[in-house]
Amino acid sequence: ICNDYFCRPKNTNIRIKLPVVCFTWQIAMIILFGVFVRYDSESDAHWPETMIQNNITSNTENDFYYRYPSFQDVHVMIFVGFGFLMTFLKRYSFSAVGFNFLIASFGIQWALLMQGWFGSLDPSTGKILIGVENLINADFCVAGCLIAFGAVLGKVSPVQLLVMTLFGVTLFAVEEYIILELLHVKDAGGSMVIHAFGGYYGLTISRVLYRPRIHQSKHLQGSVYQSDVFAMIGTLFLWMFWPSFNSAIAYHGDGQHRAVINTYLCLAASVLTTVAISSLSQKTGKLDMVHIQNSTLAGGVALGTAAEFMVSPYGALIVGFLCGILSTMGYIFISPFLEKNLKIHDTCGIHNLHAMPGLIGGIVGAITAATANELDYGKQGLINTFGLTGKLQSRSPSTQGGYQAAGICVALAFGIVGGAIVGGILRLPIWGDPADENCYDDEVYWEVPEEDEENPDSIPPILEYNNHMIHKQQEISESNFSVDHCGA
Amino acid sequence: ICNDYFCRPKNTNIRIKLPVVCFTWQIAMIILFGVFVRYDSESDAHWPETMIQNNITSNTENDFYYRYPSFQDVHVMIFVGFGFLMTFLKRYSFSAVGFNFLIASFGIQWALLMQGWFGSLDPSTGKILIGVENLINADFCVAGCLIAFGAVLGKVSPVQLLVMTLFGVTLFAVEEYIILELLHVKDAGGSMVIHAFGGYYGLTISRVLYRPRIHQSKHLQGSVYQSDVFAMIGTLFLWMFWPSFNSAIAYHGDGQHRAVINTYLCLAASVLTTVAISSLSQKTGKLDMVHIQNSTLAGGVALGTAAEFMVSPYGALIVGFLCGILSTMGYIFISPFLEKNLKIHDTCGIHNLHAMPGLIGGIVGAITAATANELDYGKQGLINTFGLTGKLQSRSPSTQGGYQAAGICVALAFGIVGGAIVGGILRLPIWGDPADENCYDDEVYWEVPEEDEENPDSIPPILEYNNHMIHKQQEISESNFSVDHCGA
Amino acid sequence: ICNDYFCRPKNTNIRIKLPVVCFTWQIAMIILFGVFVRYDSESDAHWPETMIQNNITSNTENDFYYRYPSFQDVHVMIFVGFGFLMTFLKRYSFSAVGFNFLIASFGIQWALLMQGWFGSLDPSTGKILIGVENLINADFCVAGCLIAFGAVLGKVSPVQLLVMTLFGVTLFAVEEYIILELLHVKDAGGSMVIHAFGGYYGLTISRVLYRPRIHQSKHLQGSVYQSDVFAMIGTLFLWMFWPSFNSAIAYHGDGQHRAVINTYLCLAASVLTTVAISSLSQKTGKLDMVHIQNSTLAGGVALGTAAEFMVSPYGALIVGFLCGILSTMGYIFISPFLEKNLKIHDTCGIHNLHAMPGLIGGIVGAITAATANELDYGKQGLINTFGLTGKLQSRSPSTQGGYQAAGICVALAFGIVGGAIVGGILRLPIWGDPADENCYDDEVYWEVPEEDEENPDSIPPILEYNNHMIHKQQEISESNFSVDHCGA
Repeated sequence: ICNDYFCRPKNTNIRIKLPVVCFTWQIAMIILFGVFVRYDSESDAHWPETMIQNNITSNTENDFYYRYPSFQDVHVMIFVGFGFLMTFLKRYSFSAVGFNFLIASFGIQWALLMQGWFGSLDPSTGKILIGVENLINADFCVAGCLIAFGAVLGKVSPVQLLVMTLFGVTLFAVEEYIILELLHVKDAGGSMVIHAFGGYYGLTISRVLYRPRIHQSKHLQGSVYQSDVFAMIGTLFLWMFWPSFNSAIAYHGDGQHRAVINTYLCLAASVLTTVAISSLSQKTGKLDMVHIQNSTLAGGVALGTAAEFMVSPYGALIVGFLCGILSTMGYIFISPFLEKNLKIHDTCGIHNLHAMPGLIGGIVGAITAATANELDYGKQGLINTFGLTGKLQSRSPSTQGGYQAAGICVALAFGIVGGAIVGGILRLPIWGDPADENCYDDEVYWEVPEEDEENPDSIPPILEYNNHMIHKQQEISESNFSVDHCGA
Repeated sequence: ICNDYFCRPKNTNIRIKLPVVCFTWQIAMIILFGVFVRYDSESDAHWPETMIQNNITSNTENDFYYRYPSFQDVHVMIFVGFGFLMTFLKRYSFSAVGFNFLIASFGIQWALLMQGWFGSLDPSTGKILIGVENLINADFCVAGCLIAFGAVLGKVSPVQLLVMTLFGVTLFAVEEYIILELLHVKDAGGSMVIHAFGGYYGLTISRVLYRPRIHQSKHLQGSVYQSDVFAMIGTLFLWMFWPSFNSAIAYHGDGQHRAVINTYLCLAASVLTTVAISSLSQKTGKLDMVHIQNSTLAGGVALGTAAEFMVSPYGALIVGFLCGILSTMGYIFISPFLEKNLKIHDTCGIHNLHAMPGLIGGIVGAITAATANELDYGKQGLINTFGLTGKLQSRSPSTQGGYQAAGICVALAFGIVGGAIVGGILRLPIWGDPADENCYDDEVYWEVPEEDEENPDSIPPILEYNNHMIHKQQEISESNFSVDHCGA
Repeated sequence: ICNDYFCRPKNTNIRIKLPVVCFTWQIAMIILFGVFVRYDSESDAHWPETMIQNNITSNTENDFYYRYPSFQDVHVMIFVGFGFLMTFLKRYSFSAVGFNFLIASFGIQWALLMQGWFGSLDPSTGKILIGVENLINADFCVAGCLIAFGAVLGKVSPVQLLVMTLFGVTLFAVEEYIILELLHVKDAGGSMVIHAFGGYYGLTISRVLYRPRIHQSKHLQGSVYQSDVFAMIGTLFLWMFWPSFNSAIAYHGDGQHRAVINTYLCLAASVLTTVAISSLSQKTGKLDMVHIQNSTLAGGVALGTAAEFMVSPYGALIVGFLCGILSTMGYIFISPFLEKNLKIHDTCGIHNLHAMPGLIGGIVGAITAATANELDYGKQGLINTFGLTGKLQSRSPSTQGGYQAAGICVALAFGIVGGAIVGGILRLPIWGDPADENCYDDEVYWEVPEEDEENPDSIPPILEYNNHMIHKQQEISESNFSVDHCGA
């Protein structure tokens, strides 16, 4: 019997908590945006003057036109991609899509502020100046939190998710500042900054929130036919738009162009090796939807750092080849191991899709950076790709490779330490989390349409017949019964 | 008993009506396009000469490259966004997506003509010259009709929808001409022109077509689990691409850039306050899918006019904050009120998502315009943003604000008066509308796959067992019965 | 009784075959990419030097910015469009989306090589130089194979699909080289090269693989309500993004712009005539989802060749008008005829959506090309549109029209002859294809979630009641039975 503090009967009523958090937060955002956030020179109405001052002759030079198509693709990945990828559970689609929507909308506002304070602050006015690149970065930042959501999917309340996102964005912004600004590491697609950080952040939180009796809702922890098809919407939009993800904030021109080609190739290779390993893992060679939904994406994660480098097309294929294999094997061997031995329950398998491929991506980036040279890149190309200007002018590629490797460690440390602290906060019994037997169930936080009305036309024709038959027989049986009784 | 003219037994056979309307209309379109429509200078093969004449040195200056990405996003909103948003009903998904597809395809052709006659007519040749901006405007125009569709969803025939769209597009083009050209009101995202007009047009039609006995198909007027997930596809594509909607025809450069940032922020704030109010509205704080599907979008509507203005980032957040609250409260309080007291039955709640936020958007636009000044916009910025050139050169911002307010009234008047007239036409008993007990049912206008075959594998394992058991028992029972009889 | 070689009991175990093919192939790709494939000048890090050498002053001139938005739309069509369009079968959604994903990922790599050898080989280095246009062309090439997949959907194994794709891409690249390079035919949207070729390739394969006893899985060869809604996701993304498909590799500037306008109009007209014919085909005028899902797209196919020509807006409408009619009539009359008389079973009706409209597209293109003139196009416009430079300078429009017509024949010949050969290869009984009674069933190649768990909440309330009743009665009956026996 359970009588410790953390084990009281669960109260999942969030009628006060959730609105209070949302309102307080949104009002705080309005105030902080009022104090700090302004348009940058390319989105301000003074742009015509800026053009004249800077001798810009065409509106096409506005960064908007370089980045907006990629931004919209990234936006789709965040809201439809991540949201639908998590709809695979049989009765958790409302929460998957809906909470994803909530925490992403919540997080992007805070990300604009946090990333702005660290990166886009105008020193003369103390204002954060935002443009389309900031919107992309905010989406990126939130991606880290959505990855973490995948580890705890079904086991936490929306209030916990908001808290997790609040701290997640904060940690992300600091970590990103250290890696990208202080260490001057390149990570345009965020292998380290987004995926490794987000993955380990989520896994550590899941470890701290470990539920030994989670098997009580085992019956809801699988997919059904339709939910697997819905999840494929998420998979495909993530897969298709990953080239935009890895190129969205890459260098104009060849940088964006190359990042797209590399990611395109890497992802294609991932699909083939994922299918191969998935088929091998079953006695009769049948494919497993979980692998197809997730491991096919591992190549995109693993090329997050190196996509804009000169990895060369076959290099991209090799990365995709290996990641498809490793990620699928992760689902088969590592996830059960983590759950059994380390008490890390990872609902969506983010370890295999984000954490591990993120680390690989960091390593690939470090190696590629260390071996970069003027022959492959050209003098200006090397400077542009690695941003080695000003006081970094003298940094050699091999030194850059070392810094890249250091970036991996920073991301890892922030994920694990941050996750441990935030996990501790989330264990407080005030957040309205579900009981062990109510996990993975939309009913807890959503008004779900009544089920007996679900298929009013589809079930009755047969069922009513059954019922009718049953009643008829019952009458017969009962009459028999009484007759028999009489006869006995 | 019913014996008035409008109340005869319904004939929903549309085998002649629908094809006749479609063919007649399409042939008329071909003829009118043949007489009137040509490519504009940027899409005509003479473009290389135009470039030389106008000293244009790069193809990137072709408007196509400024607007095409936004156009495709808007296109997705029209066909997938509106279409899937309306699939929430349990047995009306074919109609939601299919009729949306039909009337949008029908409407865009007529819109190109109507908007062309009013706006893109080449005075020297009498031809309408079309380019990508015309395609966007045609999509916008049709959006007004799709909004109106939301109010009558499930209660009308496809023929009625075509008639409604025909008049809707016509009214729209006139209203738009008055507002944008005669009054020179700015409304790039169409708060007034699209949303307020479309909303009140639909609501008035719904009022005229009021069915007192609609409760006879009450059992079909809810959602089921899967249909709510499908509807979220619509919601998310609308939400994600709304920045493109509000910026698609904004001024090149900072105008488009700023419209995106403002809409992005406004929508994010709407999500948080929608969730807050939705949770507050239920005893246990559970969220309601109807609110999440709709009210989260209200911010995009409400910033339709002001998105390209210098509302500043926190201003956008405030608009989103308020609209999320008002729209969700609309679902809780206003919709039941409208139905009970004004006999306006609004299937999709377009009053809360489009009509009311559209009015708010008009007001926000009027205020923002009235308070515009050279300090915020710069001299050239003010001219570009409000298009105050030529004979409008001397119009002051406060005057512009007054005209903006006048625009709201025009949109409202066209919606209500137009809706009343068109509603009257639609009441004629010749359009094949469904009986009260057949509303919200795809079966009326679609070949629906037979239901007893629906889940051949999913139900049988149990049902067949049941059937088998039943038959077995029946034999037993019947044998018993005869034995008993014999024994009696 | 069956004792010929081709008729042994089917072994659908693909545990060795599928992984072996995937691994072998992916390793081969890595090696070949290593030997042959490099970045082109616009995606290489030496681009800043290229800019200086070629006097390019802005990064916006990088082809990436002209084509990337279209590329992403095409990418969505390939993976979501084709994938979801084929989910209409009641129990074949995993295969539709999953195998589409697999063969597209497999095919694009081979396409980059094959198309590269024929078209993008740098003569000095012997390397294939790739950029965004190559990615689009690879997606296009794979589209041909995905079309062919539609004809054999549900009747082949994934290994067969990979073989079909391998040969399909190879044939495509040769056919494309002959048509586009040797004959210098214009076919930017691939009416001939993609649709006619892919269609007849698939139909011929289907003919060779004809299964006289396919009716044994007739019960799975229909749709269910939800699967039809999923299929509409595919339809709409194909429909919306078809303007991008037809314009993706068109000439910069007016060429891309015009291709978009033409395709947009043509598709809109297709929708109206499809609806008209579909309604006419049913006694009560009900619409058929099969027509709406497919024939609405025929206009896009049929304008594939002529989209970038000066067909004029009403010309585009006429093409769409006719194709909607013909394609829908194809579903009603031609498909049953082909199956009964020619033993061509066409699961998705690709004859009506791709093959026939592809031929029409070729003819429309030939006529439009033959009637082109300097008045309509301008001198430079005519040269740009038809690429009549260098030694082709003297080719007249009417000659061009002749070559266009020749292109149709080449596409047709490659489709039919190639399909016959590949069909023969696929008949070998080594590819793990399903038995006649297991066609259209995901269970054969996928781990499908157990069905009795599918709707744990939706069915039990009634079923459990039934089961309970049954057991109760059973007891009663059985007790009766024994009592009776005793009494007898």
